[in-house]
Amino acid sequence: MSFPTYFEAFDARQLLEDYPVGDAFVRRYTGMSRDELHAIQDRQFRRLMARGWEIPFYRRLWGARGIEPGDIRGLEDIGKLPVFDKSDLMASVADHPPFGDFAGLGGAGRPPAIFHTTSGTTGRPQPLLFGPKGREVTNLLVGRMYRWQGLRPEDVVQSVYGHGMINGGHYIREAVAHFTNSLFLSAGTGVETRSVNQVQLMADFGVTVLVGFIDYIRKLAEVAEAEGLLERIGIRMICGHLGTEDRAGVEQAWGGARAFDWYGVGDTGSIAGEGPERDGLYVWEDAQYLELLDVDTGRPVAPGESGDMVVTCLFKDDVAPCIRFNTHDVTHELTGANDTGMVFRRIAGFKGRSDNMVKLRGINVFPHAIGALIEKRSDLTGEYVCRLRRDAGGRDDLHVTLESRGGADREELAALLRQGLGVEVLVDLVGPGDTAAATQIDIRQKPIRLIDERKG
Amino acid sequence: MSFPTYFEAFDARQLLEDYPVGDAFVRRYTGMSRDELHAIQDRQFRRLMARGWEIPFYRRLWGARGIEPGDIRGLEDIGKLPVFDKSDLMASVADHPPFGDFAGLGGAGRPPAIFHTTSGTTGRPQPLLFGPKGREVTNLLVGRMYRWQGLRPEDVVQSVYGHGMINGGHYIREAVAHFTNSLFLSAGTGVETRSVNQVQLMADFGVTVLVGFIDYIRKLAEVAEAEGLLERIGIRMICGHLGTEDRAGVEQAWGGARAFDWYGVGDTGSIAGEGPERDGLYVWEDAQYLELLDVDTGRPVAPGESGDMVVTCLFKDDVAPCIRFNTHDVTHELTGANDTGMVFRRIAGFKGRSDNMVKLRGINVFPHAIGALIEKRSDLTGEYVCRLRRDAGGRDDLHVTLESRGGADREELAALLRQGLGVEVLVDLVGPGDTAAATQIDIRQKPIRLIDERKG
Repeated sequence: MSFPTYFEAFDARQLLEDYPVGDAFVRRYTGMSRDELHAIQDRQFRRLMARGWEIPFYRRLWGARGIEPGDIRGLEDIGKLPVFDKSDLMASVADHPPFGDFAGLGGAGRPPAIFHTTSGTTGRPQPLLFGPKGREVTNLLVGRMYRWQGLRPEDVVQSVYGHGMINGGHYIREAVAHFTNSLFLSAGTGVETRSVNQVQLMADFGVTVLVGFIDYIRKLAEVAEAEGLLERIGIRMICGHLGTEDRAGVEQAWGGARAFDWYGVGDTGSIAGEGPERDGLYVWEDAQYLELLDVDTGRPVAPGESGDMVVTCLFKDDVAPCIRFNTHDVTHELTGANDTGMVFRRIAGFKGRSDNMVKLRGINVFPHAIGALIEKRSDLTGEYVCRLRRDAGGRDDLHVTLESRGGADREELAALLRQGLGVEVLVDLVGPGDTAAATQIDIRQKPIRLIDERKG
Repeated sequence: MSFPTYFEAFDARQLLEDYPVGDAFVRRYTGMSRDELHAIQDRQFRRLMARGWEIPFYRRLWGARGIEPGDIRGLEDIGKLPVFDKSDLMASVADHPPFGDFAGLGGAGRPPAIFHTTSGTTGRPQPLLFGPKGREVTNLLVGRMYRWQGLRPEDVVQSVYGHGMINGGHYIREAVAHFTNSLFLSAGTGVETRSVNQVQLMADFGVTVLVGFIDYIRKLAEVAEAEGLLERIGIRMICGHLGTEDRAGVEQAWGGARAFDWYGVGDTGSIAGEGPERDGLYVWEDAQYLELLDVDTGRPVAPGESGDMVVTCLFKDDVAPCIRFNTHDVTHELTGANDTGMVFRRIAGFKGRSDNMVKLRGINVFPHAIGALIEKRSDLTGEYVCRLRRDAGGRDDLHVTLESRGGADREELAALLRQGLGVEVLVDLVGPGDTAAATQIDIRQKPIRLIDERKG
């Protein structure tokens, strides 16, 4: 049987022309107007919508609102389409196992597709599917971001993103291999390569750049120190989802490396990342269309206001199109002018999850914000875990366990958190490493920071 | 800085023309004479030699024998070149850390390269390096082999090859993604995806093909049975290094699936694999040049005689050329006509390691051969481990521990092994699972079958 292989299913040169990398990337988007950019987006969006109407998931989603193909003439009509989220995808999987009906894989003569799952999912994992073009654009967006942030061909990159079924490690490996010229070490999580071996690899292979989840990268600095290898390792750049986590802490731990933030989710690939000046995250608007919608009303927020990030992947018109996906991750736009001259809008980065907020006495609390509040303190390790408990009277309290290096003052920390979070929380102190069992930092890509103990 | 990215560094369409896959593969090589094939090999070999002379490792290796570029005019002169093995590569790494001087990576403006390590290495891992073309040909050789063996686009493949730094899992993932149209589940080892989750994935995603190390694949059948999932899983094809291991056992465990054998090492990629008729392993002679050399003299063996497999990767002319690499894996050629009409020579597959043989009373014993001797017995699980011990009188004995399901007769098994191995060995029986701690089957890709207890 004959059918197109991966490389026959997309045109790599065309892809590099449509989504330039390196110097060509900066050149094109510093010389472009918002109108030109909008035209690029609109052209892609119309092609994407044609593909979307071929997908049962969207026909059902849109049809239920009485929308017909002619109703959406271009990007100006995108607000007429309903948003969807992970729960809709999981319902699609439940009704149409095992892959759901959102991918448009086709039958026996189907084009090639890449299949992975999300990480950290309990129960049946969420399928992530990509066609060759969609896959390589997501790879490209990460590779060109690293290069814009300063990655050089002579750099050696170590990734601590996990492999197995999880998309992350494979995705980042492809990004560096296909769109940068740096050497890449796919070390993976501490389960794939033990932490002492991770730091030995860094020393042996002259690693200069670390990418992955920041908590684990910070932890590895302590391992390197314990192994007596910290002096032999010269990390100059770190890139990961900083979110509200510790930028200064991880930079200090790795002896003055520069840390860069970016944002993306499994379904969409990279949506935004910091530029070389690290003043907000540029949205990759030649490939991604980002809306910020009010958490309660679903309407676009005013400039500068916080809202849910809702993403349309303009390039993903082969397998599993992504049209108005609500990440439930909250951010706000940075409305001032940027220093790079790039045409792209900027956002503040991940500021919490709207579906994972804790309401305490009417106040919205994002447990992840604690990381930023305690990051600069030398009396703490920066590790923490929160437990949400309900007492017999029905009152909810947040119990925050912080790792102290010794000498930390519980009262003072409770005051710090009360001020930062806007609500009273209860503080416990434990020794270094004592939250690891609860956060599972050694085995999970994203450590657990909130445990809801109200159920059961 | 501008430099070619991965996709600009090789021509995917040219590659598919030079190394056809699918129907085009069978068509070309059933219609080709040995002379035509030799001309294809010779043309590639001369290009490869030109690249080899640019590599310090080969200049040193060949120069030490007084060989000069003009001395090797084509494949007819290949026997004038010295062979090398893993110990030479590790010495190159020790002298020129961290990557050795066999890769030809180039400096800051270097072309893209893929970097991994071998698995199961103790101490500093052996670097494996590939350029884009070399990488994609190794991927192609596996993908087209799976397809020739019967892999179909509608198949769902689960791989239990490991990831992290190890090449295996990444390599096979690329092979299936880039050169077949089957969906691929990169489950990885039991450390990446626990065995109960492995079999749940098979059931959930309709897996039809398993690839990876056969011992673990066989073990997963028992896990599927224990989980009550065996009936829901329809495996029809298994592909791995069967070596002297249990083909019938793994086929029976997975309810009549057809198992296929192939052979390759990290440095070379796939060298040979079974065709659809499973009568010997066809050497992919359009890409690999295989010599069988006498273990003691280094001279070519007579047709049908056993020898070390020495491999030259004709296609690998970008990064880390591989010219006369001695795998120290032993096989012999199958000299009769084949049933497929393919022009390629066939070998018997992996028959043991010449540097891991045990000499007992003058007899060469390959501990791995025990797998084949016990495979059909329902009173055993098929798991075993050998311990080589020396008594006070200086006599070496092989103590073979077999897992009994109950009712196995030690005397009878000792006689069976004596007959199969040609020498007396000592037999112990243990219960199911009791060799796992020694073989490390749960955490190693290749279980340990021989423990030499004579040292220390």
